[in-house]
Amino acid sequence: MKNDVAVLGLGSMGAALADALLAAGHRVTVWNRTAARADGLVERGARRADSVSEAVAAAELVIVCILDYADVGTLLEQQAGEALAGRVVVNVTNGSPEDGRAMAARVAALGAEYLDGGIMAVPALIGRPEAFVLYSGSTKAFEAHRGTLDSFARSHYLGEDPGLAPLNDLALLSGMYGMFGGFLHAAALVRSAGGSVAEFTTTLLVPWLHAMSGALPAMAAQTDSGEYATTGSNLAMQVSHDALGEVSRDQGVSPELWEPIHSLMTRRVADGHGDEDVASVVELLHRR
Amino acid sequence: MKNDVAVLGLGSMGAALADALLAAGHRVTVWNRTAARADGLVERGARRADSVSEAVAAAELVIVCILDYADVGTLLEQQAGEALAGRVVVNVTNGSPEDGRAMAARVAALGAEYLDGGIMAVPALIGRPEAFVLYSGSTKAFEAHRGTLDSFARSHYLGEDPGLAPLNDLALLSGMYGMFGGFLHAAALVRSAGGSVAEFTTTLLVPWLHAMSGALPAMAAQTDSGEYATTGSNLAMQVSHDALGEVSRDQGVSPELWEPIHSLMTRRVADGHGDEDVASVVELLHRR
Repeated sequence: MKNDVAVLGLGSMGAALADALLAAGHRVTVWNRTAARADGLVERGARRADSVSEAVAAAELVIVCILDYADVGTLLEQQAGEALAGRVVVNVTNGSPEDGRAMAARVAALGAEYLDGGIMAVPALIGRPEAFVLYSGSTKAFEAHRGTLDSFARSHYLGEDPGLAPLNDLALLSGMYGMFGGFLHAAALVRSAGGSVAEFTTTLLVPWLHAMSGALPAMAAQTDSGEYATTGSNLAMQVSHDALGEVSRDQGVSPELWEPIHSLMTRRVADGHGDEDVASVVELLHRR
Repeated sequence: MKNDVAVLGLGSMGAALADALLAAGHRVTVWNRTAARADGLVERGARRADSVSEAVAAAELVIVCILDYADVGTLLEQQAGEALAGRVVVNVTNGSPEDGRAMAARVAALGAEYLDGGIMAVPALIGRPEAFVLYSGSTKAFEAHRGTLDSFARSHYLGEDPGLAPLNDLALLSGMYGMFGGFLHAAALVRSAGGSVAEFTTTLLVPWLHAMSGALPAMAAQTDSGEYATTGSNLAMQVSHDALGEVSRDQGVSPELWEPIHSLMTRRVADGHGDEDVASVVELLHRR
């Protein structure tokens, strides 16, 4: 059975979500502050609501996708109000774990269940196999609506704490920015020597990163256990000579993206952990 | 036809290279300062040389794999000397691009040809499909011995400038450390919330990084061209609110691995490039 879904907010992501729901055969009601943003979706089968409360009244599942987190609670309390009772709210607006927990409480006070969602895709990837969405909050609501949510992307449920989706979303972003930072330093080095960054990236860097990502699960097990016995070259060997910093400077490349990890490894060695694996650096970032 | 190869230096990497050559059916002569390190290889069919000059005299191809770069030139000049004339020296000891160019000149003065090699693998991976070795220096020498060099790992030739292998080796390392740094920040965030880093890494981070690495070739093309028109969210949007920094501090996680890339993006926006893609940060690392 197909569901009635409301989508509040039709920026490029909200519109992509509404389109994916339509494509999966759901009945979709859309609302946007600027009503004209709904025109294309209405042509493709969506129903236009003139108010938030009208959109919510028509739906079992309410997807909220508006730009500013601070506006989400106000919108639901002042413009949906009692119409929200008995609904499930899925909020995919980006916020912090604290934001997610506070929003869950406000939504509960309106008589609705809450799921916080973290979309790990750009709008163009919605509905594609590589896209996934993190969810946390009401297990019951997730299980009831999982089939509908799968219209967007693979659904990954993290637990009852509504803060888990935003926290894992940010953790994935930090992983991505780390990889991008490593790429930028590598690109600067290759360009400084007159090489083609495109050729380097396609033939060497991407395959190399795929191979090296094979080390991450073992490093993860080390950070869980706090046991960092080395499986390869230890921290002392890795910092014994700062070739990367020296060559970067020689090439006129700023080492500022390399220095923090080098400095953390050096501090860990100075603290007496030179015989450990690189994963032990996590102990300087977060005390267990 | 199988070749005569000498391997100078039998640390764990040198021994792995010698074993791979033996496995491929080459005649291998080995030398190490501490002769007993050769015992296992001799049992597996290698010939032990009592001196560097004896090892070099027996070979067409001389692989040098000793710990300290400064020792390589001295070893070849003082202990191989005239015996090196007409040989090809492949030096896989880690050094800088300048080191590689200087060594090529010293080896040429001894009448030999030079290849600088950067091994992108730990010893346990030698001979496995994911391992590869970067080479730069004499094209003629590389082409003549490529079949033998392929015994270790896939061979990737970069050009006549002997500095290219060390430079690309370091560029790949900077990419790896960037990815590891991103992992460490992510692991600290997940652990701070009581989550399993192993589960996060296996089910979320590794697939996410594989998907996001798909953006790198387009970013590379941007750094080559200097045209950074955005294909997704622009730099101004990415730094408009530092959620990652704030949540990290709230969770008791040091943001020191995130701050440099955030700071570079912020500077780039301040310089008037807020409408560009993240790849444009390379312009702050290296002036073209």
